[in-house]
Amino acid sequence: MADDGQSGTDRSFFSDRISIEQVEEGHTLAPKFDSSGLITCVTTHADSGEVLMLGYMNEDALTRTIESGEAHYWSRSRQQLWHKGGTSGHIQTVVEIRIDDDQDAVWLRVRLRGRQASCHVGYRSCFYRTINWNKAQSAPTLSFIETGKVFDPSEIYGDAPNPTIL
Amino acid sequence: MADDGQSGTDRSFFSDRISIEQVEEGHTLAPKFDSSGLITCVTTHADSGEVLMLGYMNEDALTRTIESGEAHYWSRSRQQLWHKGGTSGHIQTVVEIRIDDDQDAVWLRVRLRGRQASCHVGYRSCFYRTINWNKAQSAPTLSFIETGKVFDPSEIYGDAPNPTIL
Repeated sequence: MADDGQSGTDRSFFSDRISIEQVEEGHTLAPKFDSSGLITCVTTHADSGEVLMLGYMNEDALTRTIESGEAHYWSRSRQQLWHKGGTSGHIQTVVEIRIDDDQDAVWLRVRLRGRQASCHVGYRSCFYRTINWNKAQSAPTLSFIETGKVFDPSEIYGDAPNPTIL
Repeated sequence: MADDGQSGTDRSFFSDRISIEQVEEGHTLAPKFDSSGLITCVTTHADSGEVLMLGYMNEDALTRTIESGEAHYWSRSRQQLWHKGGTSGHIQTVVEIRIDDDQDAVWLRVRLRGRQASCHVGYRSCFYRTINWNKAQSAPTLSFIETGKVFDPSEIYGDAPNPTIL
């Protein structure tokens, strides 16, 4: 962590990727960060299993998440390290972190502190809409799974720019 | 679908992205594909809630998934459309498709046909290892959540190249 000098800039925290067998069947953490330095992270609620959000981590964010037990991401829209809940209070406490076969994706199982919400629009999960389609339709439509917001974003974020990019 | 002439090349299947309000609070499907033409997809088992895999879809793959009810992805390692289970028989039947707030990620809830497996290494889920770390460790280690493989990859894939890239 930044405040104890053990930040994610110490690359020895992760192992080098030596062989496919090591990456797929080994016991060392050798994550693959993409050409932008990021690994994809899916975050689910540890109790309900629902997908709360999908985010990205750089080396620093993944290291801080492991060391602190609180979810850290890389904000692609703001281009900065993002301690989830730092502004909103919606801290995600890590229950478990899994890594996938080729170690280019992370699955974070969390519980929520404060309001039970993870979405900047005000819903519990970012995935608050479902896709509907049948053969009589020319295009799919969306319906809302969550019927109400957990919080009012304008009260929490004020005039901060909306991270959604068209 | 390709065989009825309604393939994903018909861009009118998706709506244009007009405003943040439409994207976040609207009822039209207006997905954001990245600079490589891809949208990220997390796939969970509809009954257990476990994360089975994390993949990517282009317009064609997302359209085919919606229209056919079977998961299609874009294989980044093979650079081609990938009907999941086309080779292995591990078809993923779609129960629900959700989209996230800014519509740049998809959550696919599926059931599995045939062997109950989704991972090319032979495990049920691609996320078969968990990350362990405590302050006494210099680096994290991995332990296996799944203790045995569901199938033998060499029997299913033969000499096909392993999709894992170092």
